[in-house]
Amino acid sequence: MKTAIFPGTFDPFTIGHDSIVRRGLSFLDEIIIAIGVNDSKRTYFSSQSRLKMIEELYKDEPRVKVEAYDSLTICFAQQKGASLILRGIRTVNDFEYEKTIADMNRKISGIETILLFTEPEYACISSSAVRDLLKYNKDVVPFLPKGIVLFTEK
Amino acid sequence: MKTAIFPGTFDPFTIGHDSIVRRGLSFLDEIIIAIGVNDSKRTYFSSQSRLKMIEELYKDEPRVKVEAYDSLTICFAQQKGASLILRGIRTVNDFEYEKTIADMNRKISGIETILLFTEPEYACISSSAVRDLLKYNKDVVPFLPKGIVLFTEK
Amino acid sequence: MKTAIFPGTFDPFTIGHDSIVRRGLSFLDEIIIAIGVNDSKRTYFSSQSRLKMIEELYKDEPRVKVEAYDSLTICFAQQKGASLILRGIRTVNDFEYEKTIADMNRKISGIETILLFTEPEYACISSSAVRDLLKYNKDVVPFLPKGIVLFTEK
Amino acid sequence: MKTAIFPGTFDPFTIGHDSIVRRGLSFLDEIIIAIGVNDSKRTYFSSQSRLKMIEELYKDEPRVKVEAYDSLTICFAQQKGASLILRGIRTVNDFEYEKTIADMNRKISGIETILLFTEPEYACISSSAVRDLLKYNKDVVPFLPKGIVLFTEK
Amino acid sequence: MKTAIFPGTFDPFTIGHDSIVRRGLSFLDEIIIAIGVNDSKRTYFSSQSRLKMIEELYKDEPRVKVEAYDSLTICFAQQKGASLILRGIRTVNDFEYEKTIADMNRKISGIETILLFTEPEYACISSSAVRDLLKYNKDVVPFLPKGIVLFTEK
Amino acid sequence: MKTAIFPGTFDPFTIGHDSIVRRGLSFLDEIIIAIGVNDSKRTYFSSQSRLKMIEELYKDEPRVKVEAYDSLTICFAQQKGASLILRGIRTVNDFEYEKTIADMNRKISGIETILLFTEPEYACISSSAVRDLLKYNKDVVPFLPKGIVLFTEK
Repeated sequence: MKTAIFPGTFDPFTIGHDSIVRRGLSFLDEIIIAIGVNDSKRTYFSSQSRLKMIEELYKDEPRVKVEAYDSLTICFAQQKGASLILRGIRTVNDFEYEKTIADMNRKISGIETILLFTEPEYACISSSAVRDLLKYNKDVVPFLPKGIVLFTEK
Repeated sequence: MKTAIFPGTFDPFTIGHDSIVRRGLSFLDEIIIAIGVNDSKRTYFSSQSRLKMIEELYKDEPRVKVEAYDSLTICFAQQKGASLILRGIRTVNDFEYEKTIADMNRKISGIETILLFTEPEYACISSSAVRDLLKYNKDVVPFLPKGIVLFTEK
Repeated sequence: MKTAIFPGTFDPFTIGHDSIVRRGLSFLDEIIIAIGVNDSKRTYFSSQSRLKMIEELYKDEPRVKVEAYDSLTICFAQQKGASLILRGIRTVNDFEYEKTIADMNRKISGIETILLFTEPEYACISSSAVRDLLKYNKDVVPFLPKGIVLFTEK
Repeated sequence: MKTAIFPGTFDPFTIGHDSIVRRGLSFLDEIIIAIGVNDSKRTYFSSQSRLKMIEELYKDEPRVKVEAYDSLTICFAQQKGASLILRGIRTVNDFEYEKTIADMNRKISGIETILLFTEPEYACISSSAVRDLLKYNKDVVPFLPKGIVLFTEK
Repeated sequence: MKTAIFPGTFDPFTIGHDSIVRRGLSFLDEIIIAIGVNDSKRTYFSSQSRLKMIEELYKDEPRVKVEAYDSLTICFAQQKGASLILRGIRTVNDFEYEKTIADMNRKISGIETILLFTEPEYACISSSAVRDLLKYNKDVVPFLPKGIVLFTEK
Repeated sequence: MKTAIFPGTFDPFTIGHDSIVRRGLSFLDEIIIAIGVNDSKRTYFSSQSRLKMIEELYKDEPRVKVEAYDSLTICFAQQKGASLILRGIRTVNDFEYEKTIADMNRKISGIETILLFTEPEYACISSSAVRDLLKYNKDVVPFLPKGIVLFTEK
């Protein structure tokens, strides 16, 4: 069985992330969405909220699992029996960032990173852009996966 | 069954190409190495030589097939029942070149392109660099897959 | 009056080119589409065909003029009394290519180059991709401006 | 009337910023220099100082207005009746950063972003480089617009 | 005598840094490893630890000196009588970052920056990646110069 | 003695090439300008003309030698006893091109490539841009080294 983890902060999970997961399912058997939790980094949505929102989104897709983790990505992958990491790349900057990490991960653990190009119409969408819009009470619905419910603990 | 085509000119097939194929087999069921044949483009090795050399290289790997084609890559893929294209990327230049083609291919045919980063130690190796070395009678063995036999029709 | 030339080979004129022209009209008074003619460079469509197709496309838009030229772009601009060049950029590669030319043009002639980002959904469309599709008798309508009639002299 | 806003932090306003504004005036009727104010981000010069310095610089140029704003850039533009954003790009990194934002802004509001290449001799000049020089009491005059008076509230 | 400074934070000094220094010695007479000290920036290793570790590493190489500095790099260079700065570049991002600084340094002081490409097998190694591994108690020995002793003041 | 070769086609030698050579002399003992001769590639200036023009330019600089070569660059370097190659880089595209070649050269021969950033004001100048200007009888003097005499065999 080909299992890949799809790691990220997902603060929040966007329509771009969703697209990578759904396209990844066309050649992978299982994808574990791995929500990075880092206590020293403040997020807009708590890790609980992020977990709940993404789980809810994929509740009818048994091939997608959602977990939070607080360790090196490759250690989490190994612990889950996954030998693949899935990532989307939008820009040259992403390309170089991902390359450095992927080369390091392969060297240390043998884990492969598989890349998909983000679809052009989603390339300008990032979690930070969504957060900016939220701060100014703008509509973010076009930038989120269909059916996701933003869930903020207050 | 997950089948991907791995298209290229492979003039000649390098250790970098071989590495992408072998790493691709870790998550794909079958890879068809698709040798692009273009009569208006002169190559160092004939398409027959390239086909023979690559077939020989993978003769003990039943999951790898080798074929020549002279059409749009996506048409060849569809004809073979493959819904995936596998590509290695070395540089930012590769990234942009592949992205443009992959976006076009997805738009026209729905075929996905999956990318792997070329391993850093192979990133400087290209078919054209190998051909340059051959022209000056330099040793190219370190840049070719172990066991490949260069075969030139004369 | 703010007149810009929009130079290119336009072999053929794509939906991406059309989009740059229409967006350029939002801040320019007049755009001269300047079709580069270079006798030593073979094109798929003759310069006459390209001229006719683009003229036809903008026949109801008096602010767009279409001309062929065979000289340095800045000389053609000066001859037309235009002090601006309009260009679309899709990729990092485009960015560097345009930058080198724009810096040179500004240095020699004082002519400014104004850039627009190509809309993401058109970024994978290029004249050469369209020509490739034409060669294999594929549908190119989605990549051409609405209403353009491909006109090939035979 | 073609009005563009030229948004930035301008901490401080450099000779590079000034060059973009003056070149922009060659094809725009009015430019509003829009000083981004963000209370959670510490700046070297206060927003009042930045406003005063830039206003003073353009006091004889009626086509340039200077304002501070604390909202989304596109909202500020709409409020001012401007349908254009003017930006200079120096590097590939700038290119990708601006592209992401410009694509998002066009999608949300229809506002166009017009780009000029920074002149090569100013490309290494940034507000942060100027601040570094100021910290070490180095001469920054060559990096600032002719005639600007640095104004620090203490 | 050709003396270059090799400035950096070196938190910690990696096998990649060591490689640049040793390759630089093939065309330079003396290299001063210049450890940037910036009190407002927290580091994993104290400046004393970094100084001690690097000095120890090069104790048998009289052409390498190690010093800490807290000023503009060009001022430190001038103070040491060095007219050259040595830097390794790994990525496009490095390229643009170094270019901006090098152009500025040349303009202000006439000091030249000489670049070497980082060897591909070290390109994914960065001090920050090493620190991440240290935080999770992973083996970092393959990423450090042979013989270096990590020295943490506690 | 530190000898570097500075290889190129130099069709023609520009003010940018000259600047790299002069800056290189600040840390090298000798530079051999190595004019690549490739009979299958048509050039604007013959190899004899290029040799003569560059020799003339440096006739008073004993540390600069000029030679034509028709072999692999590293072989020419070894034959001359040079263990260094000097190159200028202007753009990201140059960076990647040079990196690939430099990594290959280091791997095969141990020869190091030393890079300098082209000065920003010369970055838009290329031999091909100069040739374009020559074709249209434009003034190219500002783009050539002071005192060079263009010499065309007819």
